[in-house]
Amino acid sequence: MRYSFASRTVSLLSSPLRQIRENARLNSFISLAEELPAQELFPVKRLEEAAQDVLASGPDVLQYGEPEGFGPLREWLTAEWGGRKNAFVAPSQVLLTTGTQQAIDLVVRLMVDEGDSVLVENPTSPGCLQVLSMQGAKVIPAVSDGNGLLVHELEQQMKLHRPKLLFAAPTFSNPTGGVWDMGRRQDVLELCRRYSVLFVEDDSYGELDLNLKRGEVHPSLFALDDGGQGGQVLYIGSFSKTIAPALRTGWAAGASHVIEGMTVLKQLADMQSSTMNQRLLHRLLTGPGFSWHDHLAQLNKEYATRLKLMLELLKRPLWKEVTWRVPEGGMYVWARLPEGLDSAILLKAALPKGVAFMPGGLCTAGKEGASFIRLNFSHPGRDELFLGMNLIGETIAEFTARS
Amino acid sequence: MRYSFASRTVSLLSSPLRQIRENARLNSFISLAEELPAQELFPVKRLEEAAQDVLASGPDVLQYGEPEGFGPLREWLTAEWGGRKNAFVAPSQVLLTTGTQQAIDLVVRLMVDEGDSVLVENPTSPGCLQVLSMQGAKVIPAVSDGNGLLVHELEQQMKLHRPKLLFAAPTFSNPTGGVWDMGRRQDVLELCRRYSVLFVEDDSYGELDLNLKRGEVHPSLFALDDGGQGGQVLYIGSFSKTIAPALRTGWAAGASHVIEGMTVLKQLADMQSSTMNQRLLHRLLTGPGFSWHDHLAQLNKEYATRLKLMLELLKRPLWKEVTWRVPEGGMYVWARLPEGLDSAILLKAALPKGVAFMPGGLCTAGKEGASFIRLNFSHPGRDELFLGMNLIGETIAEFTARS
Repeated sequence: MRYSFASRTVSLLSSPLRQIRENARLNSFISLAEELPAQELFPVKRLEEAAQDVLASGPDVLQYGEPEGFGPLREWLTAEWGGRKNAFVAPSQVLLTTGTQQAIDLVVRLMVDEGDSVLVENPTSPGCLQVLSMQGAKVIPAVSDGNGLLVHELEQQMKLHRPKLLFAAPTFSNPTGGVWDMGRRQDVLELCRRYSVLFVEDDSYGELDLNLKRGEVHPSLFALDDGGQGGQVLYIGSFSKTIAPALRTGWAAGASHVIEGMTVLKQLADMQSSTMNQRLLHRLLTGPGFSWHDHLAQLNKEYATRLKLMLELLKRPLWKEVTWRVPEGGMYVWARLPEGLDSAILLKAALPKGVAFMPGGLCTAGKEGASFIRLNFSHPGRDELFLGMNLIGETIAEFTARS
Repeated sequence: MRYSFASRTVSLLSSPLRQIRENARLNSFISLAEELPAQELFPVKRLEEAAQDVLASGPDVLQYGEPEGFGPLREWLTAEWGGRKNAFVAPSQVLLTTGTQQAIDLVVRLMVDEGDSVLVENPTSPGCLQVLSMQGAKVIPAVSDGNGLLVHELEQQMKLHRPKLLFAAPTFSNPTGGVWDMGRRQDVLELCRRYSVLFVEDDSYGELDLNLKRGEVHPSLFALDDGGQGGQVLYIGSFSKTIAPALRTGWAAGASHVIEGMTVLKQLADMQSSTMNQRLLHRLLTGPGFSWHDHLAQLNKEYATRLKLMLELLKRPLWKEVTWRVPEGGMYVWARLPEGLDSAILLKAALPKGVAFMPGGLCTAGKEGASFIRLNFSHPGRDELFLGMNLIGETIAEFTARS
């Protein structure tokens, strides 16, 4: 090599995700590692009609648009999403992004200097941890139980580290699928106010409620924070898991000066996301033949069925030393391996059998992630799920038989 | 504000570009500041047919794809672009990006640590300068005459500053529209080899050749560098100026380890660009009823006409103290204001008249940019161009009359 990379880049280049991806391209490989929705449920016919309409409207749709995103879609979001979730913001407080990953990258670039502390709900999404590592943040893992972050411990960490951000997913997190209770939501928000910490609320999976008998889940912290007016919360949402990933449309909503700052950084990062795709999505959501509410209900019904199958498979003898909590929503089961078994080592043994999962270390800031794996149930079909779970179970059993 | 931004972000938030944009939204405002292609020339009918085809092929097109981009489009690029330009690379050496802006952001994030030196052809694109500023690079302006960078000065700067990158647009740059001659291309490449500098070749405007009688322009530095095999050059191209910006598709081609590094960073930045848009583009380029060659020829013919009109208008008495070089390609005229007139001050006087241009300071790393303005001729229609040039000319005349 005749020139050198930036210092922080180097560690990112050796991620095990690359090896999973290389394998996943092979035929007959089964990956429960992915973050893929079920493509059978994409509204492809409706989008085909929407595309015809939108492109027939003339060349404007193919031109550069506003860097903050197509105005009518931002208006739809403030009305539909804002109204349903009691999050009252103006369209100017919404930035359309290329999925939630970009929203995370932008807010971290906006706020975090090298060496700044950032609190992260632990475990958390692999994408968030990578962004923080790239930005040179000092990542502080915040401890949670099944009901949310532990408030006393969190306050001690805020006092000690003076973090700039707290990154968490209170509703159906990636990877746990858990839900914070109401008290924790209020207490954590109060702490963020007291210690001047911006709460980044990742609601990427917030619509995927798999408890079909429940009414509404608890309000988002964004809604509790005076509908975004207080500015203590940046909300991040996505259409990738609910409509289709290839539209590459997510959004961030928050205080005006944060959204304006992120918009400037977005222009620097990629000028803007595709106006055409945003118009397509807007046409789908507001046009005939499509009900957002019915679509979500159908999606959640199917995902609940897939989860049920995975939970059945987890009860089989091969999995007897593995423990897990039933997720309330989202696309994953977060499972603890038998004592002493390391998920990165398990993955190395599983790949040659033609199967992958997400090793827990990639979802955690501390070391305890090594004893966890994340299993995706939204994407694999029924047969794949059977076979994949069997192959992983066998690999685990081979290790436990030895010890 | 209850929390603070990162230190480098703050300066970016006060850019005059924001004020231009705010004004440009008003009705009857004429902006010659934009980087917009002519939407009358978008192949909107062909893209409508392509969208029908692509979406009818099933839900796969809406799923996540490869982070490096749709394989067949990368293959098309290596065959068509690579073949035509004598740049011989494998598809694995090509990364599809959300336009050239993202390619620039990714390579800078990959390579540049805070405080690292980066050489920049001066003047250069505003987007490049913003990325470098955000990454904390020490920007060193490289001096050029009408034939390319000055080689002796460049070598002194390389010796003194040990830069990581040299960023330049040897063919039809934004903003000058100039072309480096063959000798300079070879000499600069040789210097990059000797001093281990990665040459980032921005060819965003490289297809927009407005000298209709010329055959091929000089080969790109990428092609001179052993077709990318040597790895001293990263080539950056775009479909935003040739097909349509809303497809948000550009690409970077280079040595495998650079492309792999950029791909990892792309996943961190936004997971991936839209597979659907990449498939649309591929279908357009390879499908019936569309000739890439004829399309480019038609585009260049129309832009040459628009340039001719702008050059006529520049000869009017209002512009008599302004000087410029006729651009060889691209979408802009780079003009020097009368002695002592500052382009940022001129812009403030022009905005209330309902017209904007790009002040030269945003295109330059040094201070001399203040005496230049960049005028776009690709987007405004004939009447807009007449009126806009008249309004700017009047504003200049008001200043020169006073002094």
